[in-house]
Amino acid sequence: MKKTKVGLIRVLTTDDKDILYAHEKKLMKYFSNLQITTRCIPNQPEGIYDENTEKMAIPKIVELAKQFEKEYADIVFISCANDPALRNTRQILSIPVIGTGSCCATFALGISNKIGILMITQNASQTMVEILGDNLISCVRPTGVNKTLDLLTEEGKRSSLEAVERLTEKGCDTIALACTGMSTIGFADMIKKTHKVNVIDPVLAAGLLMSYRFF
Amino acid sequence: MKKTKVGLIRVLTTDDKDILYAHEKKLMKYFSNLQITTRCIPNQPEGIYDENTEKMAIPKIVELAKQFEKEYADIVFISCANDPALRNTRQILSIPVIGTGSCCATFALGISNKIGILMITQNASQTMVEILGDNLISCVRPTGVNKTLDLLTEEGKRSSLEAVERLTEKGCDTIALACTGMSTIGFADMIKKTHKVNVIDPVLAAGLLMSYRFF
Repeated sequence: MKKTKVGLIRVLTTDDKDILYAHEKKLMKYFSNLQITTRCIPNQPEGIYDENTEKMAIPKIVELAKQFEKEYADIVFISCANDPALRNTRQILSIPVIGTGSCCATFALGISNKIGILMITQNASQTMVEILGDNLISCVRPTGVNKTLDLLTEEGKRSSLEAVERLTEKGCDTIALACTGMSTIGFADMIKKTHKVNVIDPVLAAGLLMSYRFF
Repeated sequence: MKKTKVGLIRVLTTDDKDILYAHEKKLMKYFSNLQITTRCIPNQPEGIYDENTEKMAIPKIVELAKQFEKEYADIVFISCANDPALRNTRQILSIPVIGTGSCCATFALGISNKIGILMITQNASQTMVEILGDNLISCVRPTGVNKTLDLLTEEGKRSSLEAVERLTEKGCDTIALACTGMSTIGFADMIKKTHKVNVIDPVLAAGLLMSYRFF
């Protein structure tokens, strides 16, 4: 069967191949029917971390998406839990555009009505919150965890699992991971080892959606 | 890898094996990591077609779901686009419960913000409408099509494809099929052959969700 050609957009600037290709690598491991090309936006080595950097990134994401549509792709995939430029890009392109955050949220919504978001930013992804609506019970950020790498320290792991407990105590039976970095480090499996709860890996949720030939 | 054990509930009473196992057969063709057992509710040969028959079916679905949890299943799957008893069952069971309608809607929402529902009943599935929210542009029922079998006549096909056109003319780029019968007859592929539009097959959407080991 013909592979689905995915144009994957990273919303930070890097030439470190381990970082650049982290999501592509994860997807390739699970979804053999995807053919992925990764590109990153220019001149934003710190990525998106507030309103201003998101605003800066939007025209760059739109530009990359247009390139992908023109040259190559069946689908454009914006791999960031905040879904920056998702709606703008959908308005311009005639091929489907998928965002990590909305995929993760919709996936959770297919499973449960009692959902928690685990995040490492100050505010939860707006698209995730909108999609989940009344089915979102709580958003929690682990104490002392400010970036993905913090999750890998002993202190960060303990703090994150304690955050998971806070979500389950509030009645959540499904946790949506609102950070692609959590996918890179395999955080969903870490949680499932210790807690009886459904966990949605955002990059894998998007991969699963793209692996189905809906177009 | 261990297969995911699915308890599949058909919401009509039948001992016709072609009908009873239609959804199981479709899922087995695409998702080799699912192990499915199908059972149907008792004493409702006409299935669910109005508020009253839905009300009658709810305790029967809950009972079957409880049996599945006790005996066998990792997941219970209620295979009906109206998601009857989905919330009730989720409140009682401690394993995940998936409904066809909500899966189909969430899947569409992961792809697009301009969604149309194609249905064969008078009213659209309430759970689908709720999940899609502002992203639902229109619900259309093909003229003269009242049951799945009508879709297979030349007249029914023409009428359904005309309904698809009505949806795309209104601006929908993604169509959610709100009837499991449309899955059985492979209606998504029929539409994609003639129209440039994304189409979500409800049973396959549920299968895809269940094929991912989120628990």
